[in-house]
Formats: sequence, structure tokens, C-alpha cells
Amino acid sequence: MTEQLDELADLIRDERLRDLRVALDDLHTGDIVDFLERLGVKDRAVAFRLLPKDTAVEVFDQLDQALQHEIVEGLKDSDVAHFFESLDPDDRVRLMDEMPASVARKMLRHLDARERSLTNIVLGYASGTIGRAMSPEFVAIPEHWTVGQALEKVRLAGADAETVYTLPVVDGHRLLKGVVSLRELMINDEDTVVSDIVSEADSVDADHDAEDAARTCADRKHLAMPVTDKEHRLVGIFTVDDAMDILERAESEDAARHGGAEPLHRPYLSTPVLTIMRSRIVWLLVLALGATLTVQVLDTFEATLEAVVVLALFVPLLIGTGGNTGNQAATTVTRALALGDVASRDVFRVLWREVRVGVTLGSVLGVLGFLVVSWRWDWEVGAVIGLTLVAICTLAASVGGMMPLLGKKIGADPAVFANPFITTFVDATGLIIYFVIAMAVLGL
Amino acid sequence: MTEQLDELADLIRDERLRDLRVALDDLHTGDIVDFLERLGVKDRAVAFRLLPKDTAVEVFDQLDQALQHEIVEGLKDSDVAHFFESLDPDDRVRLMDEMPASVARKMLRHLDARERSLTNIVLGYASGTIGRAMSPEFVAIPEHWTVGQALEKVRLAGADAETVYTLPVVDGHRLLKGVVSLRELMINDEDTVVSDIVSEADSVDADHDAEDAARTCADRKHLAMPVTDKEHRLVGIFTVDDAMDILERAESEDAARHGGAEPLHRPYLSTPVLTIMRSRIVWLLVLALGATLTVQVLDTFEATLEAVVVLALFVPLLIGTGGNTGNQAATTVTRALALGDVASRDVFRVLWREVRVGVTLGSVLGVLGFLVVSWRWDWEVGAVIGLTLVAICTLAASVGGMMPLLGKKIGADPAVFANPFITTFVDATGLIIYFVIAMAVLGL
Repeated sequence: MTEQLDELADLIRDERLRDLRVALDDLHTGDIVDFLERLGVKDRAVAFRLLPKDTAVEVFDQLDQALQHEIVEGLKDSDVAHFFESLDPDDRVRLMDEMPASVARKMLRHLDARERSLTNIVLGYASGTIGRAMSPEFVAIPEHWTVGQALEKVRLAGADAETVYTLPVVDGHRLLKGVVSLRELMINDEDTVVSDIVSEADSVDADHDAEDAARTCADRKHLAMPVTDKEHRLVGIFTVDDAMDILERAESEDAARHGGAEPLHRPYLSTPVLTIMRSRIVWLLVLALGATLTVQVLDTFEATLEAVVVLALFVPLLIGTGGNTGNQAATTVTRALALGDVASRDVFRVLWREVRVGVTLGSVLGVLGFLVVSWRWDWEVGAVIGLTLVAICTLAASVGGMMPLLGKKIGADPAVFANPFITTFVDATGLIIYFVIAMAVLGL
Repeated sequence: MTEQLDELADLIRDERLRDLRVALDDLHTGDIVDFLERLGVKDRAVAFRLLPKDTAVEVFDQLDQALQHEIVEGLKDSDVAHFFESLDPDDRVRLMDEMPASVARKMLRHLDARERSLTNIVLGYASGTIGRAMSPEFVAIPEHWTVGQALEKVRLAGADAETVYTLPVVDGHRLLKGVVSLRELMINDEDTVVSDIVSEADSVDADHDAEDAARTCADRKHLAMPVTDKEHRLVGIFTVDDAMDILERAESEDAARHGGAEPLHRPYLSTPVLTIMRSRIVWLLVLALGATLTVQVLDTFEATLEAVVVLALFVPLLIGTGGNTGNQAATTVTRALALGDVASRDVFRVLWREVRVGVTLGSVLGVLGFLVVSWRWDWEVGAVIGLTLVAICTLAASVGGMMPLLGKKIGADPAVFANPFITTFVDATGLIIYFVIAMAVLGL
């Protein structure tokens, strides 16, 4: 399949567009998406226009957000309206959130009144809340209805709703009383009253953080969750496919920041080299600035270095090991935070665990380091290396475990405080520890 | 809510179990799961036994696998059978995959024949394939049936099936012809023939890699995907909740290996300190062994170091910057691989991009480095630092971008080849580059 896609790219280059159109007709929607996401901006616009209208809408729906953005900007006004109307309200809002205001207005102008008001309900919530990601197109069932009535409503209203598989149950004042699954309705008798088979709903407040709600939806294996306002009135529904989008985006951000770069928010091969460069340069400069601390520390101890040049040989190994230990702790705790296994109030439980882990790891490495260095150089240098390893590992594991929690506490992305910053911090403090121990043991 | 959970933990410590039982009665299933996942092994066993039977089954279903394992081992035989029967076949297989054989046999013994044979179908596929994760409990619809007949089958068989929302459509030989959603059935006329409303199925081969299939399911927003054998006969169905479990597990593995540790496969706070230590020590030793290369390199150039001690001051900054640049590239490419945006055949496209990014980043840092060092020390040392930064950044970005792809090509986890190994590699080669440039420029 993958090689076949490369051949299609050749068709564009050779301008054999008729052949391309025929070839695209034979592909699954998902494969067309994969194909488009590997092309450059211009080639993608060309290929997209060759798709039959219905396929185009489906493909558009699955495309990466950044690419949807580019495609809409390249379309004629009438086509924009067509695509925009074909999207679900929640997808529409997400797309519009990232558009220049002029394009957003152009899109809203072409919607009919009902569609526009649905979009506006969703737009009333702050960015980053689940209200912004939910769909207002739910099918609510009054609790006193029978199963037969409920099924009839699904039949009539089902085509336009975001989902018909999880149905919120409400009372006369639109207060959420629970949920009933379509499966429950199907396997129960027509005359059963809905309130007899309703299940407790795991609902979420519309102002709640979207990533947190998405994680709950995934962890608790819900296909959809009802969204309510402060008074517990039903205002929307949030589906698992949107939850997965939110989590994938959050995980891409975490992964990028762990590696010391800003997330690209678009497929790698379709991202211009200059954009990749920009996503990295600021981090790199900040980290290099932090690393000048190590130059200062070494400058301070230059006399010691000149007296015992052999100390310089172990600098990369010691700070490298410190960095690795810190990264291990930071990665474990960041992931536990993302999964909700740890909260910022657990700061002392985490610290106490990581101190013990750090001391143990440091002792194992310290003894090995002492033996090897004593044998190859002399026992005094061996003692310096051994003691430094114990101290650095303990420091690195504790700081590595704490940083993500402290970052979360002050409202920053925990991943930002992870690997690269810890490495820089441990580099500088590790060197100070190293030279202090060296001066004490060697009597300098 | 979170503080309330901490108060419950106090109830166990104070042995006020009656109060705890009352308090647990008021909690949502999901909150009970969160509560249990924060307890130690013994406290968890105590709390779990206080749950009413039905709640216990639901809670068990949502618990982390490693904790399910411990709970089953602590239960009496009759209780084991009860829990095991209440699980879906795919969840049961996953649980059993990780059990000691003696416990697994104990569990199978108590199942009735039909349940046992379903488990065995799933067990016939290799570990890591989608066959192992799928459910054999699907509701298949013959293509010549009417919508009315199909709905009747859902009504009768729906209670036991894994899902009734995505229904595979088959011909007389059980060959997969497509899928029809329950929503489609609901909104169409009773007399419509199913083959008129069937959609093309995005199916997956039972021997296919589970993570890859899960990613497809998530990307293409399917609630479920039919699973077929080599002859395209329907053998099972794979649902989005299982896809999310697989992806979460894969992402935890990636995150851990990025940070240079083995994944814990269980919630952080419930993991013994010794287990955390073990997940890190081997990596740390291997990386420390790799770092002895840097000691060798510095030892080789000791004469140069002794002649110009000022060179030692910049060692941490230079190798740190190299490590950061390498990590940025490796993280971006690993994530792109995980999302399917890049494949291993793209190796030269990636290389060419990363070379350009590396040269640009290196030039920016190199010019800055030259200016600062020339001003603070002298222009010759400045030139050495500037040139080294250009060379190291180019090398690090290219190697960082290639490593995950090469790792994937030889069948290893790309994340293993990412950050820590690249740092170690760049450390050693970066130092060689540094001293070669220094000797050339300073005429040593």
C-alpha cells in the first residue's frame, strides 16, 4: 500500500491528473488521508480538488487540523460554505478556533441560522474547556418516557445527532438524571419506562478542563459523556472520538516538550523545514544560556582543574549519569501525572520514593565507579568519583521527581520542566558537588 | 473529591471498615477505581472486599491490569470464577496473558464450556496481534436480511455481544462484505435490504500488529473494526475502548524508554520502590558503560587539555547542546513514527530535512558562541567553540533523526534508540570533533 502511495505522488509531479483521479477512486478514505498528509501544500491542494464531493467531505473530516486550515484558505467562497456545513458543530468550532478572524467570518456567513446558533452555543465556553469540544447535537430522553417512545425519537432525530449510542436522560427541567445506552433500549421491552433502566451518569461540567475530561472518558471506557452547566442542566455531549483527538494532541505536546522543542501540530513530512527550525531554536537558546552556568562553575574551579587535570576526564560521565537519573524520574512522574495516577498534592510521597530510589541507584553506580577508577587510576580519585555518583544520583532523582509536580502546581505544562531543564540544572549543581568533594578528599 | 479520597484511606488505617463501606457506597465506580489505585497492596485487598458484588465486578473491569492480577491472586477459588466469568473474553485473555500458569488454569477450570471456547479462539493468535485483543462475541448480519430482521437479531443477541453499534455484514460463507451501524439500521425503513445500506468496512487481519490496528481505529474514528482471517472471513471485532488501552500502554512504554527506563505497567504510587529501582538500573548501567567512551576520548586528548585547560570549561556546554539538538530531532521523528506520519522508507527525506535544520541551528548558536567567547576569552578559542557548535548540531540532528527510523527497520522499539543513547553517542563523537577542531585552529 505504502509504495502505491508513492507512485501516486509521482503522478502529480508528472501532471497525469486524469490517472490520479482514477487511482484515488479506488482508495479507502483513510488511505487518501495518509496520502494527502505526506504531500507538500501545493500538491495537496491539487490532489484534494480531484476528489468527488462526498469523498472530499469525508477526507476533510479526518485530515490533520493544520492541513484543514490550509485547504479552507485555498478554496472558493461557495466551496468553503459547503465544507463548513458538512462538519459537526464541535469540529467546526475547533477548526474556526485556529483560523484568522477574516476567514472565520467568511465561514459563519454561509451557514444557515440553525447551524449558526449551534456553533455559537459551543463558542460561548472558554478555550481549553470541554464546553468548547462538546457537541450541542444530542438526543435527550425524558425520564418518564417508555422505551418505545425513546426508540421512536432516535429513529427520527438520529441522523443529525452527534451520537445515538449514549442517550442522556432528563427531567422536566432539563436536569440530567442519568444516561441510557441504545443497547439497553434495544434489549428491553417497548413498554418499560426509561426511568427504570436509567444508569447513573458520569457527567462533566462544561467549564471543566478538556484534557482532563478526555482522560476520564478514556479511562472509564465511555463512548460519550453528557456535559452539564453549573445547575446540572444538560447542555451537550462529548464523544470518545473527540476525546481521542484531544489526548493525541496532548501527548504530542508532551513528547515534543520532553525532547526540548515546541509541538509542530501537523504531520512531520508536510511541515516546512523553517517551521521545524523555529519550533526548536528558542528552546535550544534558553538551554544553551542555562548551560553557560556550567562554564561559570568550571571557571571558578579552574585552579583545581589545572592542579588535577584527570578530574576533567570524568566530567561528561558524571553529569551524563546525573542527567539520565533525573530524566528517568521526571519521565515516570510526568507520565503518572498525565494518567491521573499522581496529583500535585502527592509531592512528599513522590519525594520520599525518589530519594530512596536515587540513593539505591547512586550506591550501586558509586561502588562500581570506585572499584573501576581505583584500579585504573588511584583510590583517592576513585573515592571522589564514587561519592559524587551517590550524591548526584540522589539529587537528580529527587529534583527530577519534584519538578513536574511543582510545574503543575504553578500552572505550567509539567513536560516543560522535564528532561532538558533537569539536565541543565543537574549539570551545574552536579559539577559544584564534584569539585567540593574532590577538594575535600584530595585536600586541595 | 481528591481530599475526600485521602480521608477514606485514613479510615482503613484506623480500621473503621464499617464507615468505609458506607462511604464507598456513595462513590461513582470511577472514583472507587481512582481510590484503589492509590492504595498499597494490602489496603487495596481490604477495601476491595468491602464492595458490593456488582460494584466489585465493574470496578475490577476498570482497574489497572497489574492490580487485577494481584486481586485475583488474593481471592478464594469460587470468587475467582465469579470475576473471571464476568469479564469479556478479550479482557479475560489479556488478564490471563500476564498470570502465572497455575492461576490461569484455575481460572479456566471454572468457566462454562461456551465461555471457555470463546477464550480459546482468541488465545489461538500470537501475542501482540490484534487477534489476541479482539472479541469473538460479535453480532454478524447476513447481507440479504432486511433492516427489520437485523434489528430483531440485535434485540435478541445484543446483551452478550462486545458491541452492537458496529455490525459486520457477511455473505453465506461468512466472508466480510462490509459494516452497518446500528444508527443506519434505526433511521432506515424496516423493509430495506441490508446490502443496500452496507458501508465499505475498514477491516484488519487477525495477525496484524495490535498497536498499528489500534492507531488506525483511533485515527479513522471507528467505534469498532471487524477482524478477518487470511481468507477475509469474519473472526472477531475490535472495539475503540480496547484500542485506547493499547495506545495508552504503548505511549507509556514510549515515554518511559524516552526517559531511559523500562515501563512500570502499573500506577506509580502503587509500585514498590524496588520495582521502580529495577526498571531503571539496567538502563543506567548500560548508559554509564557507554559514557566511559567519553573518559577514553578525554584521556586520549589529555595532553591538549593540559596545554589549554580553558578547553575543559566548555565541555559540558558543547556536549549538552549536542544532546539537546539530538533529542529534539529524535523526539520529533519518534512521535511522527508512532502517529504513522513517517515510515522507515522515508529515511532519506528525514535525513535531508534534519541536515538542513541542524546546519541552521548550529550556525545561529555558532555565531553567538563565537562572539561571546571571543569577547570573554580570545578569538581563537571563540573560533573553536563556534565551529564545534556548527559541526555538533549538524551531526546531532542528523543522527537524532535517523536513529528511530533505523531502530524501527531492525525491528526494535524506536523509543529505545532515542534520547539517552543519542546523548551518549553525541557526547563521545562531539568531544572528538571538539579536540580535532581545537588542535587544528590552535595549532597544537
